[in-house]
Amino acid sequence: MKILIDTYGADQGEKVLVDGAIACQKKKDFTPVFIGDKEKIEELIAGRIDKYEIIHTTNFISNDDDPARSIRRKKDASIVLAYEKAKEEGYDGILSAGSTGALLAGGLFIAKRINGIDRACLATSLPTIEGTTLLMDTGANMDCKAQYLEEFGLMGKVYLENVLGIDNPKVALLNVGVEEHKGNKLSKESYALLKEANLNFVGNIEARDLLTGKANVILADGFDGNIAIKTAEGILKLVAGQLKEVFYKSLSNKLAAGILKNDIKDMFGKYSADEVGGAPLLGVKSYVFKAHGNANEVAICNALLGLMDYIDKKVIDKIEGELI
Amino acid sequence: MKILIDTYGADQGEKVLVDGAIACQKKKDFTPVFIGDKEKIEELIAGRIDKYEIIHTTNFISNDDDPARSIRRKKDASIVLAYEKAKEEGYDGILSAGSTGALLAGGLFIAKRINGIDRACLATSLPTIEGTTLLMDTGANMDCKAQYLEEFGLMGKVYLENVLGIDNPKVALLNVGVEEHKGNKLSKESYALLKEANLNFVGNIEARDLLTGKANVILADGFDGNIAIKTAEGILKLVAGQLKEVFYKSLSNKLAAGILKNDIKDMFGKYSADEVGGAPLLGVKSYVFKAHGNANEVAICNALLGLMDYIDKKVIDKIEGELI
Repeated sequence: MKILIDTYGADQGEKVLVDGAIACQKKKDFTPVFIGDKEKIEELIAGRIDKYEIIHTTNFISNDDDPARSIRRKKDASIVLAYEKAKEEGYDGILSAGSTGALLAGGLFIAKRINGIDRACLATSLPTIEGTTLLMDTGANMDCKAQYLEEFGLMGKVYLENVLGIDNPKVALLNVGVEEHKGNKLSKESYALLKEANLNFVGNIEARDLLTGKANVILADGFDGNIAIKTAEGILKLVAGQLKEVFYKSLSNKLAAGILKNDIKDMFGKYSADEVGGAPLLGVKSYVFKAHGNANEVAICNALLGLMDYIDKKVIDKIEGELI
Repeated sequence: MKILIDTYGADQGEKVLVDGAIACQKKKDFTPVFIGDKEKIEELIAGRIDKYEIIHTTNFISNDDDPARSIRRKKDASIVLAYEKAKEEGYDGILSAGSTGALLAGGLFIAKRINGIDRACLATSLPTIEGTTLLMDTGANMDCKAQYLEEFGLMGKVYLENVLGIDNPKVALLNVGVEEHKGNKLSKESYALLKEANLNFVGNIEARDLLTGKANVILADGFDGNIAIKTAEGILKLVAGQLKEVFYKSLSNKLAAGILKNDIKDMFGKYSADEVGGAPLLGVKSYVFKAHGNANEVAICNALLGLMDYIDKKVIDKIEGELI
C-alpha cells in the first residue's frame, strides 16, 4: 500500500510527519510517499527506512490562502500533487495535517464527490466512556443544509459498520435540548428529515453527552461540530493544567500525586486527540485523512493506521453501494 | 428589595428555590416573593423566615409548552404573574429556573425590549483561569443576525463595566479559527460589523479558549453558545467521574487521593456552575435572572445575589443610556 503524505502544514514542520511515518512502518507494512522538499525529507529520514518515495515540491497551500482559488492555481502545491497522484493506479490514500479548506477544495475539485453526496465532511472519532462516537461534521462545511446532515448520517453509518464493526449504529442530532421542537432552523429541518431517513435515528442529543457514548454518530453543522470539539479540547487541557498545579502545591501533594500519576496519565491519554490522530474526509472519491495541525509523532502514526484501515475496508465503494 | 421567585421549573422542585432564598436572606437583606402553591411553600418555609410574600398559583409553563403562545394564554402561569408583578412599583426583579423560552417570551411580550435592542440574550458568566468571561448568548436566540451579536456586545460591555468593574472589556467573537475570513455566514458578517462597532473588539476566539480568560465577552449565536457551555459542563463532569474511578482503584490510590481530596474539590468548585448560579436576561426592561434547571440551593442563593447586584448597579438604565 502506498500512502501519500503531505509534509507541509503541521505546526511542528516536516519532522513530525516523517517520524510518524517511520514509526508507523514498524507497525504495518506500507510505502510512505512524502510530498515536499526532497533534500529536507532525505535529511530527516537519515537512512532509517529504505522503502519510501519522495515527490519533490516546495510549494504548499497555507491557512491564509483562499482554498478553492489556490487548489486551482497552485498546480505544484503539495496537496494538489497528492490529490493528482491519488488518482493514479497504485496510490491508495492521502494524509495531510495542512489547511482543512485546501483539503476539502482538493477533494471537491480534483478527487470529486461521490455520486449522491452533496458535501464532504470530516468525521472525528471521539473517545467516549464506552466505545467510539463519530462527530460529523467537525469543520469542513460552515453553513449546512438539513440534507447534508442526512448524507453525513448515511456515510457515518457505513463507516462505523465497516471500519469499527458497529451494527446499525445509533445516529443522533446535536441540539440544545432533547425535545423534537428544540433548536434552530437547521436542527428542526434536520430532525424532520432524519426521522424519515433509513437510519437508526435516536433523536436529539445535548452537547453535555458528547463523550458519554449515548450515540454512535452525532450529526452537526461543521461550525457547531468544531465549536464542540474545540471546547472539549480546551476544557481537558485546562483541567489537566489545574490538576498539575494541585499536585505541585505542597510536598504532601507531590508525594500523593506520585502514586496516582500513571493512572491519571492513562485516564487523560484515553481522551487525547493523539489516540485517533486524524479524521477521514468522507464523501470524496479518494481516501483522505486529516491530521491535526498540532499533531505529534504518535498522532501521525495513529492517523496513518486509521487511514489504512479505512482503505482496507473499501469504505468508499460501500458508501457508493449504499447510495444506489 | 423585593425579588419575585418563580417556584416552578427547577428539576428538584420548589424546595430548592425556597431553601436557596432562605440561605440568601442570611447573606443579604431582601424580601423573597414566592410565586407558586401557597400551601406547599408555607410548608417548605416552615417558619424559618418571617420576611416573605407569596403569590398563589398552581399554573406554570413547562419546557414542553409553546413559549409565546403560553405566555399570551396562561394568564395565571407563575412566570406570567412574575413579569406582571415586576412592572409594579416596589418589585425589583425576577428569578426563574423554568423554561428559557417562556422567560424570553415573557420578557418580549410583557416586560418589553429596551429601545434599540432587537433581541434579549442570556449572558452566562464563565469561570476562567483569570477573572470572568461573559458568554452571550447561551440559548435565548436560536437563529441570530450579525446585528443582534453587536447589540449583545454593547450590553455585555455595560454589564461588565458596571457589575464587575471591568474597564473597556475585550470583546471577541466565537469562531472556528482566529483569522478574519474564517467561519460561517453569520460569523463573517458579525466580524465586519464588530470591527466598526464602538467596542474593544479583539477579533475571533476559538472554543478552546472559552475558559482561558483571553476575552471578557465572547459573542455567539444562542445555539452555538449553548453547545459550547454544555460541552464544557459535560467534559468537567466526565473528568470528575473518571478521576473518582482512579481514586478508588486501589488502596494506595485511595490513601493518596485522601491527601489531595480537598484541593481537587476546590479546583472543580471553581469551575462549577453553582458558583454563579444564573445568568441575566439582558435586553428586556425587567431585571431577570435565569437559574439552571438543575440548580441546587447554593446555585439559587448565588443567582439571587447576582440578580440583586445587577439591580443595585441599575444596569438597565445604563444600557438605555448607552443606546441613546
